[in-house]
Amino acid sequence: MKHLIYLFVFVAFSCQTSVCFDAEKAKEDIFDVLLEQQRAWNEGNIEAFMQGYNKSDSLRFASGGNVTYGWQTTLDRYLKGYPDKSIMGQLTFSEIDIKLISNTSALAFGKWELERDGDHPWGLFTLIFQQTPEGWRIVHDHTSSNK
Amino acid sequence: MKHLIYLFVFVAFSCQTSVCFDAEKAKEDIFDVLLEQQRAWNEGNIEAFMQGYNKSDSLRFASGGNVTYGWQTTLDRYLKGYPDKSIMGQLTFSEIDIKLISNTSALAFGKWELERDGDHPWGLFTLIFQQTPEGWRIVHDHTSSNK
Repeated sequence: MKHLIYLFVFVAFSCQTSVCFDAEKAKEDIFDVLLEQQRAWNEGNIEAFMQGYNKSDSLRFASGGNVTYGWQTTLDRYLKGYPDKSIMGQLTFSEIDIKLISNTSALAFGKWELERDGDHPWGLFTLIFQQTPEGWRIVHDHTSSNK
Repeated sequence: MKHLIYLFVFVAFSCQTSVCFDAEKAKEDIFDVLLEQQRAWNEGNIEAFMQGYNKSDSLRFASGGNVTYGWQTTLDRYLKGYPDKSIMGQLTFSEIDIKLISNTSALAFGKWELERDGDHPWGLFTLIFQQTPEGWRIVHDHTSSNK
C-alpha cells in the first residue's frame, strides 16, 4: 500500500513537471493542423481549411486593421474574399516556429504566401493554439501582409 | 509536525490550482506596462518605451512582412524609423483585451494609433507577455496596419 502511495505521488509530481506531457507530440500535432489547412486550401476547400480554427464565437481573426469574431463569421469572410480557386491560388506556409506556452496552449509563427496568376501576396501570421476535445485548434489569428 | 506537513501539502496544491495566483493583479500589471509604454512614447522616449519588451535576443517583433529578433535590434529599428518627436506623434493604445494563458504567460490584443500633423496611421497588435524577474514583459509582438 505504502509503495502504491509513493507511486501515486511520483506520477502526480512527474505530470506536473511535464514528464507525462509529450511536448514534441504536441508540436507535431499543431504542425499537422497547419499542413492540413494548407492541403485543404490548395484543394479549394475553405470549409475544410476552417477546421483548424476553434468552432467558437470567441475565435478572433485579425488582419491588417480588421478584426472578425466567431468561427462562422470568419468562414463567411473567407468565402466572400476567395470566391473561386483562381483567387485562392496556391497557399504555402513556411518558416513555421511552434512554441508551447503551457500544456494546453501554443504559439505558432510563420510566413504565408499565395501563388496566383496575377500576383504573389505574402506576409506573416501569429496563431494561438489551444488543446480542445477536437484536438489543437486556433483560437486567435493575427495575420499581416507585406503590402 | 504532522500538521505542518498537512499545511505544506495544502499550500502546495492550492498554488498549483491557482488560488495563490492573482489573475486580476497580473492583468493590471500587464495593462500598466502598456500604459507606461504609451506614456514613454508620448514623451519621445523610445528607450523607456522599449522597457516593456523582454531584454533578450529571442524577442520577436513582426510588422507587416518584416521580422526583427532581439531587444537591441528592435530598439535600433525604432530609433531609425522614428528619429524625432514629430514623426513619433501621439500614441494611443485602445480596445485592449488581456487574456492569461498560464500563470506566467498572457496574450494582449488591441488597437494602436498615431496622431501626427500629416497623417493618422493605426492598426492592431498581438502581444505575448511573459512573467520575468523584471515583471511582465513582451516576448512576441505582431503588429499590423490598416493600410
